[in-house]
Amino acid sequence: MTGFTLAETVIVPASHGRALRVWAGDRIRITDLEGQQVGDLMAWCVADPAEYLSPAHTVTYNWRIIPRVGDVLASNRREAMFRVVADTVGYHDLIVPCCDAEAYLNRYSLADHRSCKGNLEEALAELGLDYEVHGERAINVFMKTRIGPDGAMIYEEPTHPAGSRLDLDCVVDAVLALSACPQDQTPTNGWKCTPLGLERWTPTT
Amino acid sequence: MTGFTLAETVIVPASHGRALRVWAGDRIRITDLEGQQVGDLMAWCVADPAEYLSPAHTVTYNWRIIPRVGDVLASNRREAMFRVVADTVGYHDLIVPCCDAEAYLNRYSLADHRSCKGNLEEALAELGLDYEVHGERAINVFMKTRIGPDGAMIYEEPTHPAGSRLDLDCVVDAVLALSACPQDQTPTNGWKCTPLGLERWTPTT
Repeated sequence: MTGFTLAETVIVPASHGRALRVWAGDRIRITDLEGQQVGDLMAWCVADPAEYLSPAHTVTYNWRIIPRVGDVLASNRREAMFRVVADTVGYHDLIVPCCDAEAYLNRYSLADHRSCKGNLEEALAELGLDYEVHGERAINVFMKTRIGPDGAMIYEEPTHPAGSRLDLDCVVDAVLALSACPQDQTPTNGWKCTPLGLERWTPTT
Repeated sequence: MTGFTLAETVIVPASHGRALRVWAGDRIRITDLEGQQVGDLMAWCVADPAEYLSPAHTVTYNWRIIPRVGDVLASNRREAMFRVVADTVGYHDLIVPCCDAEAYLNRYSLADHRSCKGNLEEALAELGLDYEVHGERAINVFMKTRIGPDGAMIYEEPTHPAGSRLDLDCVVDAVLALSACPQDQTPTNGWKCTPLGLERWTPTT
């Protein structure tokens, strides 16, 4: 990665979450190590955690339901938090919430299934943070949803291979949390839950 | 309205908001008095206001981005809060956040423009409530958005006439807030901001 030096590497274990502090000017790389895996991303501004990454505000910032290279990932205050600088996949979901305990219980009668919401709460707790985690604040990286002509929300099996990646420039100092989605009841992760790579790169001085 | 008795009528003045307490079993009618007007709806469960109406969870509850008659408006805990029982319009938006002070300032350099977010906060304050109002929690009733084949989010001028209405059955005791959207810089409200009617009906005993 020209102009950047690798500062930190985190492996997000399958069906778990990890959080990371990032600084304005850093570049983040999310890598799907084995392929077909979704990552649920949330973030909060360090200056004021009441400002957080918001998929809905990202849609209106870019006037597009799937962010492209050059687009912004925006906060609930309509400010840029990240900018997409590389994307080998091209599909991400900004519409549906991340999975949670209620989803597994209501739909599949699974009382103790891991969830992205739980993963993100655990990841923040490991940093000693109790920021609010709300399912509708997740950007569903590498998630292949499609809207049918009748408005149907369709979850498709992803097709991206191992090594797929999304690179983001950090616009503000933030805490970022990423869950390797534990959904194994639908095609969302290709019926197999696998780890993700998360790297932080700093500008080379 | 067969089987129901009108209990309360509220006029939501143009570009303002009003809040209302509702009970399980009630029926709510939202009427567009002059036509082409959007209403931004938020709601909170009385038993625990940390459970709130969530457009994103509504999408996955119904597997559809526009709710239809028979569909549920769901909470962040994936429970039904309301059920759609009549709809003379057929378009509503569950994807974009409501307008706020930042939107008018960033896009149009308008520092003192009214906003749905501000309207909903004012409406709650009139009931002595300080529930959290977040833009991504608004269901944009009668808002005509469309997703282009390339994923573009398109705001269209609405076409619904005066007297258009949406009827909702209340599944839980809730506080409901409705803003008559003050957006006059785009076609969202047909370039004219007008009032909405809000009625609460109780089952006839």
